[in-house]
Amino acid sequence: AYQRTAHDFFISDNLREELQRKSEASHQLLPNSTLPQLEHFHSLVPLDTTNQKSATIFGYPSWVYKANSSKDGNLYALRRLEGYRLTNEKAIRSVQAWKRVNNGNVVTLHDAFTTRVFGDSSLVFVTDYHPLSKTLAEHHFGSPQRFQGRVAAAHVPEQILWSYIVQIANALKAIHGTGLAARLLDPSKILLTSKNRIRLNACGVLDVVQFGSQVPIQDLQREDLAQLGRLLLCLASNNPAALHTMPKALEYISRSYSPTLKDCVFWLLDTSPNQPKDLDRLFNGLTSKFVAAYDNSLHFSDHLTSELNRELENARILRLMMKLNFINERPEFEHDRQWSETGDRYYLKLFRDYVFHQVDAQGNPAVDLAHVLACLNKLDAGIDEKISLISRDEQNCFIVSYKELKRGVEAAFQDLLKAGRRGP
Amino acid sequence: AYQRTAHDFFISDNLREELQRKSEASHQLLPNSTLPQLEHFHSLVPLDTTNQKSATIFGYPSWVYKANSSKDGNLYALRRLEGYRLTNEKAIRSVQAWKRVNNGNVVTLHDAFTTRVFGDSSLVFVTDYHPLSKTLAEHHFGSPQRFQGRVAAAHVPEQILWSYIVQIANALKAIHGTGLAARLLDPSKILLTSKNRIRLNACGVLDVVQFGSQVPIQDLQREDLAQLGRLLLCLASNNPAALHTMPKALEYISRSYSPTLKDCVFWLLDTSPNQPKDLDRLFNGLTSKFVAAYDNSLHFSDHLTSELNRELENARILRLMMKLNFINERPEFEHDRQWSETGDRYYLKLFRDYVFHQVDAQGNPAVDLAHVLACLNKLDAGIDEKISLISRDEQNCFIVSYKELKRGVEAAFQDLLKAGRRGP
Ligand SMILES: Nc1ncnc2c1ncn2[C@@H]1O[C@H](COP(=O)(O)OP(=O)(O)OP(=O)(O)O)[C@@H](O)[C@H]1O
Ligand SMILES: Nc1ncnc2c1ncn2[C@@H]1O[C@H](COP(=O)(O)OP(=O)(O)OP(=O)(O)O)[C@@H](O)[C@H]1O
Ligand SMILES: [Mg+2]
Ligand SMILES: [Mg+2]
Repeated sequence: AYQRTAHDFFISDNLREELQRKSEASHQLLPNSTLPQLEHFHSLVPLDTTNQKSATIFGYPSWVYKANSSKDGNLYALRRLEGYRLTNEKAIRSVQAWKRVNNGNVVTLHDAFTTRVFGDSSLVFVTDYHPLSKTLAEHHFGSPQRFQGRVAAAHVPEQILWSYIVQIANALKAIHGTGLAARLLDPSKILLTSKNRIRLNACGVLDVVQFGSQVPIQDLQREDLAQLGRLLLCLASNNPAALHTMPKALEYISRSYSPTLKDCVFWLLDTSPNQPKDLDRLFNGLTSKFVAAYDNSLHFSDHLTSELNRELENARILRLMMKLNFINERPEFEHDRQWSETGDRYYLKLFRDYVFHQVDAQGNPAVDLAHVLACLNKLDAGIDEKISLISRDEQNCFIVSYKELKRGVEAAFQDLLKAGRRGP
Repeated sequence: AYQRTAHDFFISDNLREELQRKSEASHQLLPNSTLPQLEHFHSLVPLDTTNQKSATIFGYPSWVYKANSSKDGNLYALRRLEGYRLTNEKAIRSVQAWKRVNNGNVVTLHDAFTTRVFGDSSLVFVTDYHPLSKTLAEHHFGSPQRFQGRVAAAHVPEQILWSYIVQIANALKAIHGTGLAARLLDPSKILLTSKNRIRLNACGVLDVVQFGSQVPIQDLQREDLAQLGRLLLCLASNNPAALHTMPKALEYISRSYSPTLKDCVFWLLDTSPNQPKDLDRLFNGLTSKFVAAYDNSLHFSDHLTSELNRELENARILRLMMKLNFINERPEFEHDRQWSETGDRYYLKLFRDYVFHQVDAQGNPAVDLAHVLACLNKLDAGIDEKISLISRDEQNCFIVSYKELKRGVEAAFQDLLKAGRRGP
């Protein structure tokens, strides 16, 4: 029997519903939009729905849009920095290195360019679009307007914090390994894209905006670890402003979490030169957490595979049903009993009645989806089982096997295809 | 654009085809079988198709069957040890601890019992069934009958070997953590259940069969690591009998693989007491491999999620098409024009023609699956777009929106359900 365990870590309570909602969000359009088209991106929809634009993070107010690419038909997220003027062509080239970072915990960056279509001079970053994702800030600290002064946010379980650490360490390994630094581990710049799955967002933006700064990359990479420490401090103490109340926050963490987690956070926060830090040292303390995360994700894949399996069985039924619909009751053959009332095709018509038009003992419609699926599955498999098909006037009864019916569907469908190809 | 990278590690070239073949293998039955039913397991199909039964591994010849459980309807793999006599009831109780091992790289053990239904005294182990899986021996060394004396098996890429090491380390962590030992890391007892995904098989069998042996569990756990070394020796040197030609095999490994891999294999093989070994020491050397494996499996999950998404869209279409089929051309309303030729239901009939019975300019059938899917997707979304439906006699034309049609489907389907529920 299937048990709820730590292995359900990534599995939302209703995966299908979640995917359906994401698919709807992806298809959503903005009626009467006045947003422009830029390069090959059209149908822009704003994702960043707060009205106050702050320039705190990037030095420029930023906007996020969902957009359709007419080049490949895919959806992208565009981040626009308002009022940015490119002074050095080289600045934007740093994006090239970022394109090579293809990691499961980073929002992939595809391109960057400047544009004037918004009526100002804007810098635009093109990244993957992750429907219905929230930032960690939104998820853990709520929207300040709505929750200010109300109940404190909920305590974050230790297992979740370790999972964030593992995922960010995975992201940093790819980033540092490409000779880059994340530079930005702010709760508002980390996306939660599905249950307990996070991705670093807005990567590469500071590389362009702060181009020309002389800080060596090693220092920036070391700073990433300190930023991770500060991120954990805020999340673990449930306080976005924990940096201003360090002693209280550290005390809360010591009291509420295991010594291992506390030590990890304290180690990351310690920036004294006699505590040299790099990713490898971080990893040494994380081995068992990585093993657990790996096993969780294997179980998640197994779960997804079994769900996919079920849906693939549906897909086969769908194709069969489309064929039956193409064949039965074609108007151009309505008075051509030769076509529709003879041999195979007649059986298929009666079979359609058998599958969909059952009535109960009183002659009332029997709408039984299980019966439909069972019949169509047998038809798909083309098994030897025989059924009796009764003509509508109840004068005739035919005994046919699913195997013969399957052959009949194929033959009639091929006939139709041939008829369709027949030129003028 | 989607690129082939290391991230495709788990993704078979044709995932759908693979899943389809697995689903067929799961449904396969044995006509005219003489195999018995045991406890609640029926419909046994042998999975172990070689004729020579060897007792080398367990001390008893063994058989493997696929079986259906009438208790939960699921499929299981049964391993039967022929001629085993239980002398101590406690022996079989060791299976209880194994039931708690729920790991992504172990074939889960569910139960064990003795039976006489095969005409002898047999011991049976009930485990998860993994359709179309092969053993590592079959995969890497081929079947000896077929390949003997022919070309040598192919060189195993280093990346694959690391992936096996990571997966077995993950399995051993769960097993040792439960106070057990794998005892058996033979290439014939490790299953390849999908692309590059392995699981330890036949776990717990030796615990029963060798019950009462006095070897301390710590020694057995240490022996697991030595067995892992011997397994890698055989796989890396492409020779199931490499143990008998150690110097040659070690030389081949030194020449063909990185120093890190070579050192790992040599370290595992060294059983001298001044080289004390445990899992933690192994993990310390594997951190970066675990990070890579973790990232691979995140990418695999993302791939599965996007495939599942596509199939879920199909599933919605399937449900719609079933409803249309239930509604249109019901024989019991054949002469009741009130039902089928009025209002909504008449539109639905014409809509069915519009979707499935298009003809080209010459009046030949136009069989266009893309047209069908586009129409049904719009119907499912219930959008405002309007289409014109033309009556079969071409005397009437109706302009209706997909929104109205969607409402019509729902209403007519609810009518049918109500009519079906109407009692005698
Ligand atoms: N790649 C993306 N895919 C989908 N949605 C995204 C993506 N990036 C951002 N978003 C959405 O856009 C919203 C705004 O993102 P943003 O990074 O601007 O955060 P913010 O809270 O507005 O912070 P700031 O004040 O710095 O702008 C988020 O709530 C997130 O859901
Ligand atoms: N849990 C399982 N699910 C699906 N198939 C399995 C399972 N266990 C074993 N099999 C299949 O049964 C076959 C035989 O397995 P077995 O462990 O008996 O290997 P073997 O090569 O016959 O070795 P031995 O000589 O020790 O019996 C394998 O090829 C494998 O594909
Ligand atoms: Mg914003
Ligand atoms: Mg066997």
